[in-house]
Amino acid sequence: MYPEILHCNACGQRVEFRTPDGDHLPRHVCPACGHIQYRNPKVIVGVIPEASDGRILLCRRNIEPRLGLWTFPAGFMEMGETSGQGAAREALEESQADVEVDELLMMINVPYVSQIYLIHRGRMRSDHHGPTFESSETKLLREEEVPWDQIAFPTIWHSLKRYFEDRRAGVWRIHTLDLAYRPRPPERAEVSRGEPEGG
Amino acid sequence: MYPEILHCNACGQRVEFRTPDGDHLPRHVCPACGHIQYRNPKVIVGVIPEASDGRILLCRRNIEPRLGLWTFPAGFMEMGETSGQGAAREALEESQADVEVDELLMMINVPYVSQIYLIHRGRMRSDHHGPTFESSETKLLREEEVPWDQIAFPTIWHSLKRYFEDRRAGVWRIHTLDLAYRPRPPERAEVSRGEPEGG
Ligand SMILES: [Zn+2]
Ligand SMILES: [Zn+2]
Repeated sequence: MYPEILHCNACGQRVEFRTPDGDHLPRHVCPACGHIQYRNPKVIVGVIPEASDGRILLCRRNIEPRLGLWTFPAGFMEMGETSGQGAAREALEESQADVEVDELLMMINVPYVSQIYLIHRGRMRSDHHGPTFESSETKLLREEEVPWDQIAFPTIWHSLKRYFEDRRAGVWRIHTLDLAYRPRPPERAEVSRGEPEGG
Repeated sequence: MYPEILHCNACGQRVEFRTPDGDHLPRHVCPACGHIQYRNPKVIVGVIPEASDGRILLCRRNIEPRLGLWTFPAGFMEMGETSGQGAAREALEESQADVEVDELLMMINVPYVSQIYLIHRGRMRSDHHGPTFESSETKLLREEEVPWDQIAFPTIWHSLKRYFEDRRAGVWRIHTLDLAYRPRPPERAEVSRGEPEGG
């Protein structure tokens, strides 16, 4: 996900990995043109889409990592969009769903993979949804139907828990969570191949 | 801030800017080795440090953009840290202050510069603070002493407003804000040179 940086993306020469003057961390510095190529944490945006009957939309992953496990629509934020716009885009791309994205539900720090999750609530403008390249199956589920032991990532699991807790309480809040170590993934996730892309 | 990507950072060859198969946006793709170099939104982490007497710590910028204007400690999040850890690091680097970072106060989308702001509340472990390379001056201020017309960025201005509102109300909340267009900066900011780095 963060491949090694070997060459300067401005001039193509080999870079050095050293702490620039006045900085406090080593960076990829070009000895030829002086350009510094920074690495930065990435933002993952997502939404829990609710249908008119209160069921929520989950997607079965058709791609690695965690192939075959369940998630709500979420993915890397793109340049020039807000977290809400990105979450709506992911919903369309991953589940064909037209979602009106509401307030933030959860901000999660996942420092061991240098990621921030921004998860919103949302309402489906219609009940239409369906499989996509990224999702082999999409399904509207009641809380008691959620496959808790087959959720793709801990960040998704925690967000779903907070969602149903708040909805039961009748009070929406914005939650924060720091995943301070690599948590034990759900049982089924143990058999997935490849490196998890997130928390 | 986002320099043009001309060369592959894996092999150094010239890249093409085109939409890869199965993708929906143009990316910098290497025709030689196939590596795709993504650009991603950046996260800025910050904290509003409160001293034991209730005053808050502001810093006068010693660097462009917005040289000479005021902010609380904030800067680009580094790899491997949480937003809270990053905010504490920035406080130390920019103001010499040892800050215990508390809950998130505000998440701000700044899509026109592809940035997310994550601003926390925090308490100074001692009243020590002082100038640094990035701050010509640091100052503990009461609400009525804040130089509202000399605040460096709209994101900082809005965060400070929410901070004092919540404190007066006696209820801390987590706020969100989308800056959907480039807002008119504070009067003094108009005279700053260079491109603003943020919202
Ligand atoms: Zn170079
Ligand atoms: Zn290449």
